[in-house]
Amino acid sequence: MKICIIGAGPSGLAQLRAFQSAKEKGEAIPEIVCYEKQKDWGGLWRYDWRTGVDEYGNPVHGSMYRYLWSNGPKEGLEFADYTFDEHFGKAIASYPPRAVLFDYIEGRVKKAGVRDWIQFSTVVRDVSFDEGTGLFTVTARNCETDTETAEQFDHVIVASGHFSFPNVPYYPGFESFNGRILHAHDFRDAREFEDKDILILGTSYSAEDIGSQCWKYGAKSITVSHRTAPMGFDWPDNWQEVPALERVEGKTAYFKDGTEKTVDAIILCTGYKHHFPFLPDDLRLKTANRLAATDLYKGVVWVKNPKMFYLGMQDQWFTFNMFDAQAWWVRDAILGRIALPDRAAMDADWQKRQADEDAYDSDHDAIVYQGDYVKELIAETDYPSFNVDGANEAFFQWKKHKKKAIMAFRDNGYTSPITGTVAPPHHTPWRHALDDSLESYLQLGTEAAE
Amino acid sequence: MKICIIGAGPSGLAQLRAFQSAKEKGEAIPEIVCYEKQKDWGGLWRYDWRTGVDEYGNPVHGSMYRYLWSNGPKEGLEFADYTFDEHFGKAIASYPPRAVLFDYIEGRVKKAGVRDWIQFSTVVRDVSFDEGTGLFTVTARNCETDTETAEQFDHVIVASGHFSFPNVPYYPGFESFNGRILHAHDFRDAREFEDKDILILGTSYSAEDIGSQCWKYGAKSITVSHRTAPMGFDWPDNWQEVPALERVEGKTAYFKDGTEKTVDAIILCTGYKHHFPFLPDDLRLKTANRLAATDLYKGVVWVKNPKMFYLGMQDQWFTFNMFDAQAWWVRDAILGRIALPDRAAMDADWQKRQADEDAYDSDHDAIVYQGDYVKELIAETDYPSFNVDGANEAFFQWKKHKKKAIMAFRDNGYTSPITGTVAPPHHTPWRHALDDSLESYLQLGTEAAE
Ligand SMILES: Cc1cc2nc3c(=O)[nH]c(=O)nc-3n(C[C@H](O)[C@H](O)[C@H](O)COP(=O)(O)OP(=O)(O)OC[C@H]3O[C@@H](n4cnc5c(N)ncnc54)[C@H](O)[C@@H]3O)c2cc1C
Ligand SMILES: Cc1cc2nc3c(=O)[nH]c(=O)nc-3n(C[C@H](O)[C@H](O)[C@H](O)COP(=O)(O)OP(=O)(O)OC[C@H]3O[C@@H](n4cnc5c(N)ncnc54)[C@H](O)[C@@H]3O)c2cc1C
Ligand SMILES: NC(=O)c1ccc[n+]([C@@H]2O[C@H](COP(=O)([O-])OP(=O)(O)OC[C@H]3O[C@@H](n4cnc5c(N)ncnc54)[C@H](OP(=O)(O)O)[C@@H]3O)[C@@H](O)[C@H]2O)c1
Ligand SMILES: NC(=O)c1ccc[n+]([C@@H]2O[C@H](COP(=O)([O-])OP(=O)(O)OC[C@H]3O[C@@H](n4cnc5c(N)ncnc54)[C@H](OP(=O)(O)O)[C@@H]3O)[C@@H](O)[C@H]2O)c1
Repeated sequence: MKICIIGAGPSGLAQLRAFQSAKEKGEAIPEIVCYEKQKDWGGLWRYDWRTGVDEYGNPVHGSMYRYLWSNGPKEGLEFADYTFDEHFGKAIASYPPRAVLFDYIEGRVKKAGVRDWIQFSTVVRDVSFDEGTGLFTVTARNCETDTETAEQFDHVIVASGHFSFPNVPYYPGFESFNGRILHAHDFRDAREFEDKDILILGTSYSAEDIGSQCWKYGAKSITVSHRTAPMGFDWPDNWQEVPALERVEGKTAYFKDGTEKTVDAIILCTGYKHHFPFLPDDLRLKTANRLAATDLYKGVVWVKNPKMFYLGMQDQWFTFNMFDAQAWWVRDAILGRIALPDRAAMDADWQKRQADEDAYDSDHDAIVYQGDYVKELIAETDYPSFNVDGANEAFFQWKKHKKKAIMAFRDNGYTSPITGTVAPPHHTPWRHALDDSLESYLQLGTEAAE
Repeated sequence: MKICIIGAGPSGLAQLRAFQSAKEKGEAIPEIVCYEKQKDWGGLWRYDWRTGVDEYGNPVHGSMYRYLWSNGPKEGLEFADYTFDEHFGKAIASYPPRAVLFDYIEGRVKKAGVRDWIQFSTVVRDVSFDEGTGLFTVTARNCETDTETAEQFDHVIVASGHFSFPNVPYYPGFESFNGRILHAHDFRDAREFEDKDILILGTSYSAEDIGSQCWKYGAKSITVSHRTAPMGFDWPDNWQEVPALERVEGKTAYFKDGTEKTVDAIILCTGYKHHFPFLPDDLRLKTANRLAATDLYKGVVWVKNPKMFYLGMQDQWFTFNMFDAQAWWVRDAILGRIALPDRAAMDADWQKRQADEDAYDSDHDAIVYQGDYVKELIAETDYPSFNVDGANEAFFQWKKHKKKAIMAFRDNGYTSPITGTVAPPHHTPWRHALDDSLESYLQLGTEAAE
C-alpha cells in the first residue's frame, strides 16, 4: 500500500507523525510520500518574504508576516504528544511569535525523524483516480530539477491548507486608486505603513491583527470598514470603524454613510478561498470556510471517493491538536481499524454536523462545538487524550481578555490542558515588544534588547 | 480537424485573425477553440489592477502598469492588414499609451468578428498527447462556472506569453528589509512612490521605464543597480546608476563597490520566465529569452512534436507584426500548404538560427536579424508584405533618440512602413503628459486637460 500526502504544514506533518507513531509501536505502515511545494516544512508558519509567485512560478503559499504573534493562546493548540514544556524545557508565555511556534512544530517532527518522507520543492500539479485499478495517479513537478513524475497511490490525503489563496473583491475605482491596494496575503512588514493612513476592509482576525501591527509600528491612522458589523473593541484614538466601502476616487475612499477618508493604502483583509488548482472536479472539495465542511465525513473523508481524505479544511478555533485528532483518525481508517459506513450514512454525517453548527449562535458555543469534534475523533484512536475542556477554557478567557484590552490581551497567561503548567507573563508587554525573534521571546523576566 | 489556441493576447488574436482571413477568402478552415484565462482579450495590454492571484486563484497575467506608454515606436509594430490610419482615421503620434494600443489591437479583431471563438475566464490546466490517436487532450477550467472540460484537438498552439511569470532573485537581507520589495510584474501606480527613495535592480526595459515613470510622477530619488553594465543614458540629477547589490540591512542597500543607499522600496526589474504550468515535460518549451528560441523550427514548430506550435516566444524588437507573420505561417502549416521537414532538418534550423544570433554583437544587427526573420515568414504566406526595412529604420531612429534624451525620446515621430504616414508630434511632451487616457492622447494639437 502506498499513501500520498499533499503538503507538509501542521496538518501534513500531523499525518506523518501519526504513521510514525504507529511504526514506533511496532506496527506495519504503508509506504508514504509527502509532496511539499515549499523548500521547507511548517506550511504557513514558514515565513516567506516573497509575494505573488515564488522562484519557480508557483503562487506563494505564505500568508504570514513579520512580527506576527499567535492570535490565540498556545494552550488551545498544544500537541498532546509533545508539550511546550518538553520542547522548551521551561514554561513560556501564552502568545508566542511565529518563529517560536515554528520551532515548536519542527521540534516534534525532528524528534519523530520523518523528514525523509517528504519531497521538498515539489508541487502537485494533477491528481486523477482510475475506477478500474482503484488507484490514484499523482503528477508532481520537482521544481529544482524541473522534471515531472506520475506515481500511483492507494490513498491521497490533501493537507494543502486553505488560507493561501486570497479572496480579493473589487470595488469601483480600484483600477485607478492612486496608492497601494494589497490583500492580507501579501502583507509582510508593518513598517512599510509607518506614518501612513491605511484603510482595512474586513472585520475578522486578519483585519484585527494587521491593523494592530500597523498601529504598533507607527501607522498614522487605521480605518476599518465593515460589510456586516464593526468589531467593536476599545480601539486606540487613531483607529476608527466605519461602514461598508462604496467606491474610491484618487486616494479617497467613500463609505455607505456618506463619509469619506483619504488613505495611502487599502489592505483587503477579506479572507481566503478553498482552492485546489491541482484537482479535477470529481475529487475537488468545494466548501465555505466553516466548522463543518461540505462533503467530508467526520470532517476528513471525501464522501464522493472515500479513498481520499482532507485534513484541516475547517475554520479554526482549534488548530494543531485538531489536525492531530484528524490525522490519527485518517491513519486508522487507512489501516482498516476504523470502518467507513456507506455513502448515505456519510452524507447524513456532514449534513447533521452543518445543521448543528447552524443552530448555535455564539462564539462560546462554536468553541464548545469544535472541542466536541476533537474529543469525538480522539476517542476513536490512540492519540493521547487530553483535557479538551481545559483548552476551551483558555479560549473563553482569551475572548474576555480581548474584550477588556485589545492591545494588551497578549500580556496574559493561561493553564496548559496537557501539563497543567501555568504560563508566566511575557517579559515585555506586547505593544512594546518590537523584536519578535525566538531569542528575545525565550528570555525570561528580563527586558528584551530592541 | 480541431485546433486549440491557448491565450487571446496579441499572438493568439493574430492566430484567430489568420484563420478568419482564410475563411473570408472562401477557404475551408478547421474548428477553432481559443481558451483565455482573463475576462477579456488583449493579453498584457489589458490593464489589471490586481497583483498576485486573480479572483479565481490563478496567477495574475498582467505585468503592465498605469501610465505605460509604448517603449518603442508604433511604426515598428503596425499590422500590415490593419493600419493605424485605418483604425484611428487620422495620423497619431508615435508612442501611444497602453489604452491606445489596446484599442488598436481590439479594433482589428472586432472587425474580423472572431470573439465567438474565444472562451473567456477559462484557464488551461493540462495538455497531454496520445501517441495512439495522435490527438491532444486539453483540460480547461471555466472559472465562472467552476467546472472542467477535457476536449480533444488535432493541433495545439501555445500563445500564453512569456512576460508574466517574474524572475525574482534573492539577495541577503531581503527577508528582513524594512520596506517594500516588489517585482516589476507587481508594479501598478508610480504615484505610490511619490517622495520615495527607490532602488531598482536590472538595466533593461522595465528598469528604464519604471524608473522613468517614478521620476515623472515625483519619486525623490532613483538608484539603479546593475549586475553587468549600467544603462549609461543621460539621466536626471536625482537618478544614479550603481554597481551590483550585495545585501540589504534594515532599509539600507549595500553595493559591491562599498557604497550604500537607504531606500524605501526595492523594485526588481529582473525579467521574466518562460513558464507553462499547464504543460507536461514532453510538450514544454524550455528556452532563454532570446531571438532564436530553443527547439522551435522556424521559431514556431515544436520539434519534439510538430503538431504543436508556439507563438511569440522570442525576445522582442518586433511584436504585433511578427506575431502575425508567425500566425499566418502556422495556419498554412496546419492547412498543409507548407510542408515540414524531418526532425533533423528542424533541429538544424533552430540551431543555425541560434548560431547566427550569437554571431552578431550590436542592437543594430539584432534588429536587422529579427526583421529578416519576419521577412522570411511573410514571404511564405499571403500576409500582406510590407516595408520591413522601414520598420527597422524606425527602430534605429528610436535608439538614437533615446541616447540623445532619455526623458524626451517619446516626443519624436516616425514614418509608417505600411502607409508612409508621418506621425505628428504628441501635443504634450511625454514628461508633462500625466493623463495617459485614450481621449487625451487622441486630441490633436491641443493641450490635454490634466
Ligand atoms: C495570517 C495567519 C495567521 C495565523 N495564525 C494562527 C495562530 O496564531 N494560531 C493558530 O493556531 N493558527 C493560525 N493560523 C491558522 C493556520 O491555518 C494553521 O495554524 C495551520 O498553518 C494550518 O495548517 P495546514 O497544514 O492545514 O495548512 P498550511 O499551514 O497552509 O500548510 C499547507 C502546506 O501545503 C503545501 N502545499 C499547498 N499546495 C501544494 C501543492 N500543490 N503541492 C505540494 N504542496 C502544496 C504548502 O506549501 C504548505 O506547506 C493562521 C493563519 C493565517 C493565514
Ligand atoms: C511591461 C511590459 C510592457 C511592454 N510594452 C510593450 C510595448 O510598448 N510595445 C510592444 O510592442 N510590446 C511591449 N511588450 C511586449 C509584449 O510581450 C507584447 O506586446 C505582447 O503583449 C505579447 O503578446 P502575446 O500574445 O504573445 O502574450 P501576452 O500578451 O502575454 O498574452 C498571453 C495571453 O495568454 C493568456 N494565458 C496565459 N496562460 C493561460 C492559460 N493557462 N490558459 C488560458 N489562457 C492563458 C493570458 O491571459 C494572456 O491573455 C511589453 C511587455 C511588458 C511585460
Ligand atoms: N496573528 C494571528 O494569529 C492571525 C492573524 C491573521 C489571521 N489569522 C488567521 O487567519 C485565518 C483567516 O482569517 P481572515 O481574517 O483572513 O479571514 P476570515 O476569518 O475568513 O474573515 C474574512 C473577512 O472578510 C470580510 N469580507 C469578505 N468579503 C468581503 C467583501 N467583499 N467586502 C468586505 N468585506 C469582506 C468578511 O466580512 P463579513 O463578516 O461581512 O462576511 C470577514 O470579516 C483565521 O484562521 C485567523 O485565525 C491569524
Ligand atoms: N513601456 C514599455 O513598453 C515597457 C516597459 C517595461 C517592459 N517592457 C517590455 O517587457 C519585456 C521584458 O523586459 P524586462 O526589462 O522586464 O526584462 P529583460 O529584458 O529580460 O531584462 C532583465 C534584466 O534583469 C537583470 N537581472 C536578471 N537577473 C538578475 C539578478 N539576479 N540580479 C540583478 N539583475 C538581474 C538583467 O541583467 P543582466 O543584463 O545582468 O543579465 C536584465 O537587465 C521586454 O519585451 C520589454 O520591451 C516594455
